[in-house]
Amino acid sequence: MVHFGLVIFPGYEVLDAFGPTEVVHGLGHPMVNKDAANTQLSIIGPSLEPVSSASAEGSPIKTRVGQTIVPTHTFDAPPEDIDVLIVPGGFGAGPKSLTGGAWEAKDVERIIQFLRDQYPKIKHLLTVCNGAGLAARAGILDGHRATTNKQLWQLITATGPKTHWVAKARWVVADNNKLWTSSGVSSGTDAMLALVDHIYGKNDQGILLGDVLKNGMEWNRAHDSGEDPFAALANAEDVLPQA
Amino acid sequence: MVHFGLVIFPGYEVLDAFGPTEVVHGLGHPMVNKDAANTQLSIIGPSLEPVSSASAEGSPIKTRVGQTIVPTHTFDAPPEDIDVLIVPGGFGAGPKSLTGGAWEAKDVERIIQFLRDQYPKIKHLLTVCNGAGLAARAGILDGHRATTNKQLWQLITATGPKTHWVAKARWVVADNNKLWTSSGVSSGTDAMLALVDHIYGKNDQGILLGDVLKNGMEWNRAHDSGEDPFAALANAEDVLPQA
Repeated sequence: MVHFGLVIFPGYEVLDAFGPTEVVHGLGHPMVNKDAANTQLSIIGPSLEPVSSASAEGSPIKTRVGQTIVPTHTFDAPPEDIDVLIVPGGFGAGPKSLTGGAWEAKDVERIIQFLRDQYPKIKHLLTVCNGAGLAARAGILDGHRATTNKQLWQLITATGPKTHWVAKARWVVADNNKLWTSSGVSSGTDAMLALVDHIYGKNDQGILLGDVLKNGMEWNRAHDSGEDPFAALANAEDVLPQA
Repeated sequence: MVHFGLVIFPGYEVLDAFGPTEVVHGLGHPMVNKDAANTQLSIIGPSLEPVSSASAEGSPIKTRVGQTIVPTHTFDAPPEDIDVLIVPGGFGAGPKSLTGGAWEAKDVERIIQFLRDQYPKIKHLLTVCNGAGLAARAGILDGHRATTNKQLWQLITATGPKTHWVAKARWVVADNNKLWTSSGVSSGTDAMLALVDHIYGKNDQGILLGDVLKNGMEWNRAHDSGEDPFAALANAEDVLPQA
């Protein structure tokens, strides 16, 4: 069994969450993965109430656009056996600087504590976009290399002063393959495909399972974690850990 | 106001739906689009009950992987002013041949009728993956060029005998820019970005809005609708309309 968990909260970024879980969908499909029946996905939120991707309560950033997803578990009563925990970003993930310093969603501290509690128990953590800021504030990125969204580079890297932030990276693997941080939004899906290759390897036809999935998804895959045109576009440069 | 509608049903494919709506999220964001307050998204399903992407009831294809979304409207009582209707695929979209000929989700005929009713009223229809089969069966693709998922090429093109199915295409635009059909899963997002360029054009800095969005999404965008490596991979070839 490989049990995937998706962390969810009001103001999550849609594709941060559902790009990687599209990959999990593929893993759960009997025509794609011979171990499909052993693939499970849980959605873990603040409560069992439906959660909207539109701005979290009280946010100064207003939108009429949202999708509302139903959690299967809560931060207080999560599944006991998560193998891979996926952490999206979005305006509900903070930090305060994202909205000019005045406001942060009320669930942020709770998510940070949840990540701190879960990290010792799981096999892999995958952060997407400013989800890396949540892991940084949980202390998980301390002493490791990591990356995050390029357009929010200064704001998010500031949340992890003990981390070497790698700018030109679609994703970064650290902590003996346990810690996967990806760049903005779509990069999480490329990181997820690379993680699938790491966990599952090749199928009976000798093809990496991540490639089987990307062909089914018709995904223009970045195979190389350094293949990142967006760092230069945003003038993002490496940030070294403070002494 | 630009009002986007997403058609949803049990057994929808996650990224078919939420790649294009990630683009709508960007359009709804005041830091990205000066007309953000005029962007609206409605989710239209069989009822207001939450809808799971896991296999629809009775499907011979079983999975433990699903995400459950909450509709805002129903096929029986949709918004009156949809401009852009997005139709995802997935195993819940049929046709029967997708599951060996024995089964089709009970909502399929209802979705087809909904598309038939809506098409004269809307400005643009965007189908993703085997969502094209629903539009084909509604008669919307008759006499037009279209494309669909490459791995399901024979099965889906068979649903539209009066259509010229273009194999090497990430998406196809027809019917005086009203009809946008895209290939598999991720291609829907490239088609959506192209549709955004068509609707919104350039921003005040002279940059196409679709490019502003793809940079924020760190999306490796296919700008050219003919940029499709997946047709050759699946040996898909053009299918001409039957006389």
